[in-house]
Amino acid sequence: MKNITPKILKGFRDFLPTEARKRAYVANTFKKVFSSFGFEPLETPVLEYEEILTGKYGEEGDKLLYRFEDNGQRRVAMRYDQTVPLARVVAQYENQLTFPFKRYQIQPVWRAENTQKGRYREFVQCDIDTVGIDSALSDAEIVTTAINAYQKLGFKNFKILINDRKVFENLSIQAIIIIDKLKKIGEDGVCQELVTKNIVGSLAEAKIILQELLDRQPTERLVEIFKALEQLGIEQSVIEFSPTLARGLDYYTGMIFEIEIADYPVGSVCGGGRYNNLIGMFTDKQIPAVGLAVGFDRTIEAMEALRLFPTNIAESTTQVLVTVFSEELKQISLDATKKLRDQNINTEIYLGDFKAKNPLEKQLKYADAKNIPFLLIIGPQEAEKNNVTLRNMKTRDQQEGSLKEILQILH
Amino acid sequence: MKNITPKILKGFRDFLPTEARKRAYVANTFKKVFSSFGFEPLETPVLEYEEILTGKYGEEGDKLLYRFEDNGQRRVAMRYDQTVPLARVVAQYENQLTFPFKRYQIQPVWRAENTQKGRYREFVQCDIDTVGIDSALSDAEIVTTAINAYQKLGFKNFKILINDRKVFENLSIQAIIIIDKLKKIGEDGVCQELVTKNIVGSLAEAKIILQELLDRQPTERLVEIFKALEQLGIEQSVIEFSPTLARGLDYYTGMIFEIEIADYPVGSVCGGGRYNNLIGMFTDKQIPAVGLAVGFDRTIEAMEALRLFPTNIAESTTQVLVTVFSEELKQISLDATKKLRDQNINTEIYLGDFKAKNPLEKQLKYADAKNIPFLLIIGPQEAEKNNVTLRNMKTRDQQEGSLKEILQILH
Repeated sequence: MKNITPKILKGFRDFLPTEARKRAYVANTFKKVFSSFGFEPLETPVLEYEEILTGKYGEEGDKLLYRFEDNGQRRVAMRYDQTVPLARVVAQYENQLTFPFKRYQIQPVWRAENTQKGRYREFVQCDIDTVGIDSALSDAEIVTTAINAYQKLGFKNFKILINDRKVFENLSIQAIIIIDKLKKIGEDGVCQELVTKNIVGSLAEAKIILQELLDRQPTERLVEIFKALEQLGIEQSVIEFSPTLARGLDYYTGMIFEIEIADYPVGSVCGGGRYNNLIGMFTDKQIPAVGLAVGFDRTIEAMEALRLFPTNIAESTTQVLVTVFSEELKQISLDATKKLRDQNINTEIYLGDFKAKNPLEKQLKYADAKNIPFLLIIGPQEAEKNNVTLRNMKTRDQQEGSLKEILQILH
Repeated sequence: MKNITPKILKGFRDFLPTEARKRAYVANTFKKVFSSFGFEPLETPVLEYEEILTGKYGEEGDKLLYRFEDNGQRRVAMRYDQTVPLARVVAQYENQLTFPFKRYQIQPVWRAENTQKGRYREFVQCDIDTVGIDSALSDAEIVTTAINAYQKLGFKNFKILINDRKVFENLSIQAIIIIDKLKKIGEDGVCQELVTKNIVGSLAEAKIILQELLDRQPTERLVEIFKALEQLGIEQSVIEFSPTLARGLDYYTGMIFEIEIADYPVGSVCGGGRYNNLIGMFTDKQIPAVGLAVGFDRTIEAMEALRLFPTNIAESTTQVLVTVFSEELKQISLDATKKLRDQNINTEIYLGDFKAKNPLEKQLKYADAKNIPFLLIIGPQEAEKNNVTLRNMKTRDQQEGSLKEILQILH
């Protein structure tokens, strides 16, 4: 087996402890905020019958599905998003669910994309959706939840761009897709593309269409949503009506929005909107819905860039490493370990070989490598005086005292 | 699409909110305890190169792998356990990891098993392992961590069966597998099977072998482990030396153990041991390791049976539902919602239609269906007096007062 190179598939990632801790921190923050708004957890399987997923993501999407025949000759496919499984759940358990059904779901999905910087084949989706109600208040609640979550993560300087897909009612989907590029290619770029793609006959005509769009006022529904946002305590300054925001996808039917981080301008970190014709796909009813999807990896990147992670996130979850100096002193070290754990202090006892010439050196190295903030030294000198020494691994300050005294310092 | 029946694959499960909350509660308890002992999170991809996984789980295991060819004509397979990925990670990132490497991993795995009660094709594994050290203390630490976790989950009456695979040194793996059935088929059953399977020549001979085994004393290493467990504060009464415990698998090289719940006698809920010849499989070194695997579903079943879940686990994460009576009163309801959330009280505002004849009735039903413990009623009467009414949904007690007063009651 030595001949098998240990490697992983392109577009897939291992998360070693520091990265895994960061991801857990972000996921837990979202869960906390989602819960505080009454969204409840939902989990669905990784594998679904292929027919549940195919045809739902367009021709392009079907090509990106991971699908195969299982051992029982069933055609199966791996989760591609969390919206189609939500639609299946809503149809399958209609009588068990309470509507409006507000759920969050944070699970990985798989897409056989061309990999590139920041695009993976396995990545976490983090969604909330309110199913079964079509009201401005439920639209506003989704946006409010998003704002709360990004505030909780520590973002200060961000903006919510909002539009209503009704603004585009007279435009084709091709035109919308071009207009959606406004930020990237500018007004001239959009007008030119409208002409070259034969959407309009002339540059002048294109300019009129674009200008008309830019002059649009918020729809009646948007006015209602803005009012509800105000009532929910959202500052008006973070909200921006953006009549050219389109969000490429064609399934939106009402409000659409995106969050942009002013200090990290790489596009949106989160987006969503109302889609009233999708969730009913497995039933014979139309079931209104509104939701959002967090760009999980991009949000983490933005947090890295803006240093929003708690400074101790790179540290081990272990707070204290208790040293072991000799077989004879081990009992004292184990007693101290137990007492620290009893006080809810995450504590490791050094498991390595302590029979080296300088037992402390290896243990210091271990604490350093694992970023453990404190070392509790119980050597022969300390033991004789019935003391322990606490070493702050960052400042290198040391303090000697009874275990009781040191415990107080640790708290 | 209405013609596609919304259903899931056999052996796969959806977890609706109440179930999902229970699973999160158990996973979080394990994470907390694992962290308190210095185990750190690790995540690996669902898909691996097929060659990484095949040949590692025996012929039977290979048959149970979900494997296929991806769009890039690569042979891939879905995670079957978390030990082989751990071995890959240890080989691949050897220079980045700190040894002893102590990690926990809680992710789903897939096995194309014949489904039966309690056996699924997609299920969560929950493992800890200490890699890179072979000491009695590290063995004892794994057992101590398990005991702490099951105590934290609320189990009181459980037992740790411990043995050392060295006890079986002179026996074949076939013999061990038969002896492992002792609890199920009894001493006579084991002796008979030893004869019929031609392991020994006669029933008398089988009886001698079994009696010799039952008379065995703990190995030197086990004595050391028992001492370390005592030093770590574990009561001797929960530990039981069990010389016939074998744990079917043939990769164990030292201590093995299982946890049995006295009040829920369905076999073990957790087990593990030392396996020094497995983790080095992708390197040219022998890398010692000791670990445990939690039976996640079985642990949840045991907790259900023994009613160990917090009584409010079936409740919504929402603590308070704020009613909406009319368009005019909505602003007051939204203000109250915001104030409750500001006080870290998980709060929902009623999103449904409030224009019914009796608006309260529907909202009571919603709170009932979602098991929301409190309803904050802001009707015309309350609004006039600048009051709110708090209804305890279980006791049906109602209290009227200013929002400030009610907030104090809620805290």
